Amino acid sequence: MSEKYHPLSSETVPAYVHSRLELRQMFEKDEALETAEVGDGNLNLVFKVWSKADPTRTVVLKQALPYVRLVGDSWPLPTDRARIEAAALAVQARLVPPHIPRVYFYDPEIYLTVMQNLNDHIIMRKGLIQGIKYPRFAEHIGLFLARTLGRTSDLVLDYKTKKEQVARFINPELCKITEDLVFTEPYRYAERNRYHKEIEPQVLALQADEALRVEVAQMKEKFMTHAQALIHGDLHTGSLMVNQTDTYAIDPEFAFYGPMAFDIGAVIGNLFLSYASHEVRTADPDNRADFRRYLTESIIQLWQVFEREFQTIWDEVDPINMPKGYQRAYMLSLLQDSAGMGACKMMRRVIGLAGVEDIRGIEDVHERSIAASLALNIATALLKQRRDFHRIQDLVELATACRP
Amino acid sequence: MSEKYHPLSSETVPAYVHSRLELRQMFEKDEALETAEVGDGNLNLVFKVWSKADPTRTVVLKQALPYVRLVGDSWPLPTDRARIEAAALAVQARLVPPHIPRVYFYDPEIYLTVMQNLNDHIIMRKGLIQGIKYPRFAEHIGLFLARTLGRTSDLVLDYKTKKEQVARFINPELCKITEDLVFTEPYRYAERNRYHKEIEPQVLALQADEALRVEVAQMKEKFMTHAQALIHGDLHTGSLMVNQTDTYAIDPEFAFYGPMAFDIGAVIGNLFLSYASHEVRTADPDNRADFRRYLTESIIQLWQVFEREFQTIWDEVDPINMPKGYQRAYMLSLLQDSAGMGACKMMRRVIGLAGVEDIRGIEDVHERSIAASLALNIATALLKQRRDFHRIQDLVELATACRP
Repeated sequence: MSEKYHPLSSETVPAYVHSRLELRQMFEKDEALETAEVGDGNLNLVFKVWSKADPTRTVVLKQALPYVRLVGDSWPLPTDRARIEAAALAVQARLVPPHIPRVYFYDPEIYLTVMQNLNDHIIMRKGLIQGIKYPRFAEHIGLFLARTLGRTSDLVLDYKTKKEQVARFINPELCKITEDLVFTEPYRYAERNRYHKEIEPQVLALQADEALRVEVAQMKEKFMTHAQALIHGDLHTGSLMVNQTDTYAIDPEFAFYGPMAFDIGAVIGNLFLSYASHEVRTADPDNRADFRRYLTESIIQLWQVFEREFQTIWDEVDPINMPKGYQRAYMLSLLQDSAGMGACKMMRRVIGLAGVEDIRGIEDVHERSIAASLALNIATALLKQRRDFHRIQDLVELATACRP
Repeated sequence: MSEKYHPLSSETVPAYVHSRLELRQMFEKDEALETAEVGDGNLNLVFKVWSKADPTRTVVLKQALPYVRLVGDSWPLPTDRARIEAAALAVQARLVPPHIPRVYFYDPEIYLTVMQNLNDHIIMRKGLIQGIKYPRFAEHIGLFLARTLGRTSDLVLDYKTKKEQVARFINPELCKITEDLVFTEPYRYAERNRYHKEIEPQVLALQADEALRVEVAQMKEKFMTHAQALIHGDLHTGSLMVNQTDTYAIDPEFAFYGPMAFDIGAVIGNLFLSYASHEVRTADPDNRADFRRYLTESIIQLWQVFEREFQTIWDEVDPINMPKGYQRAYMLSLLQDSAGMGACKMMRRVIGLAGVEDIRGIEDVHERSIAASLALNIATALLKQRRDFHRIQDLVELATACRP
């Protein structure tokens, strides 16, 4: 770790901000600043800073802590992830500028990124819990996925750049978190699992399901060995900042060269988690059906936008080396693997250490167990039957036929 | 490139050898040395050096040239591959010491490795052309494959070491050679293709076969993205030094983290190339059948030894994370992918820039075209029907049913 490293605090942030030339256009010399620590993730300090005189002049400071915040300093975590995140944001910003927060600078001495304050946006997960629809989200995220994944892969990058990028984004510690929490612990007894008691029988049955564990092991192997594209690595609805017109993907500190399907599956899986939660969350059946239709239509739309945008990449590549039949097989295995990866992401959120508010936040025990059970049933079906999927509608039809 | 780099010559080798402390136990100070340049590969200088007084005291010097020797200095090639080769030899020597030449030292300033002179061994390809059987080869190479592949994979290495090794063995220029010469050029018109005129109709038909090109594209994608194990990367019978009792794998300068099946397929594919050549090479039908049976039995035996040795790795890993059904699926896709990779290696050797003596060395035009045609037919069958293979015998049965 850098010798100059020290965690910032609300007290020290203003002096730090004033010391940086990169922010002289934003803030006047020594003007009064307000600051608030707002980090609700597990791994970092996050400060909002704004001018007392004009709160529209504002930035966010994100600083990596050398341990997992959720657990404490007994779980150390290298700060190299801050470099990875800054580098991934730079790559993504070149490919889909409207969907990446603007980065002012990265300070490698204290593992800190200063970026745009997305003040007019909320974490998508919180919006979905409240039943808010985001009409532009599916289009935006389909575009984000096609460009950030397709254009960092061997389909577009020359052989040398691709391989140098693989080395640059080697991210062992953060990958290990995913390997453990997404692909290992939920499917066996593990001390860190945190499911609610009422779903224990279903969890134990799932953990005893040999066929399911074979499928999970195959997904884990792909995650660990398939260096296909620079993936975000943690693209759940808590990493999306949205409003009615904009969509931003934030927090790519888990980025590395991995399977495209892990990102696509993360989005789809989290929309299905929301879908499962709205089995009980919305009291009025009409609103419920309407909101769930919004969710499933978003899944269909985001895949269709992804496919359409990805086609522009196929149109650029050499059709002799990449014949049509190959392109079809490639897109089909993306679809099927996305179902499998999404399923693992769903199961970990119900069974594993880091749950999601959509389901764990349901107060009534009975209702919560209905939502959790439905989520596990959808995930199991998506994982086991993924080889039968040929269109995105197949995933939606199977999921919506599931019962708690 | 290092500023001290200069290519050695037979004249400068003795002084260099005497200047190195690492060789003081081998050669006496300033004793008379003989030297000969023996490189017959495409990329390097290779010198044998021995004591004039006692020729059993001998070493080999292998120095990377900054261009492809076969083509000349119009095709520059980074000397970083010498570092890769020395590092790969060190990893392999720890895992299968009897099958790796002893390395005395690597000199990073002039990209030179000094190693054991395998004076009592010949290049296996040359022996096979003469119809010589190597009874221990299959057992040795099965062991080599299981240990070097299995024990550099995620099955054995901890998460961090594996990922650091991936970065350390990033090898863009040498991978690019394989991407072009094995997976791209043979299947389309390419200036560097060098097949004999008499098989042109078959080559053109193969290049027009869309279904075949889809399969090749999938093999190429695996080669480029599947960071499964530290593979040798060029394990044809010209990279094996053998005699009746020993087997050595040499020249791992193409090493990188890639698919295990590429190495396994390279060995199998080159044995099938020999098999195809002995359709015409051996005049006496009895000897022919006998030698070809040796070749196919070697293929079966090396896979069986590989499988048995790999089982010792499975026995060490956690059976809950790696259930039996997963292990079976893993070995099955290794078998099927090895058939596909081996097929591509066969086709490139008949159609592409770097041919093999087994077939291109046949003087009679008619006989040569029979062997080449049979090799292409076996390769096409192995590639297209690989998903039907469940046992190693299935490959052999299909191949031996092929006709020129």
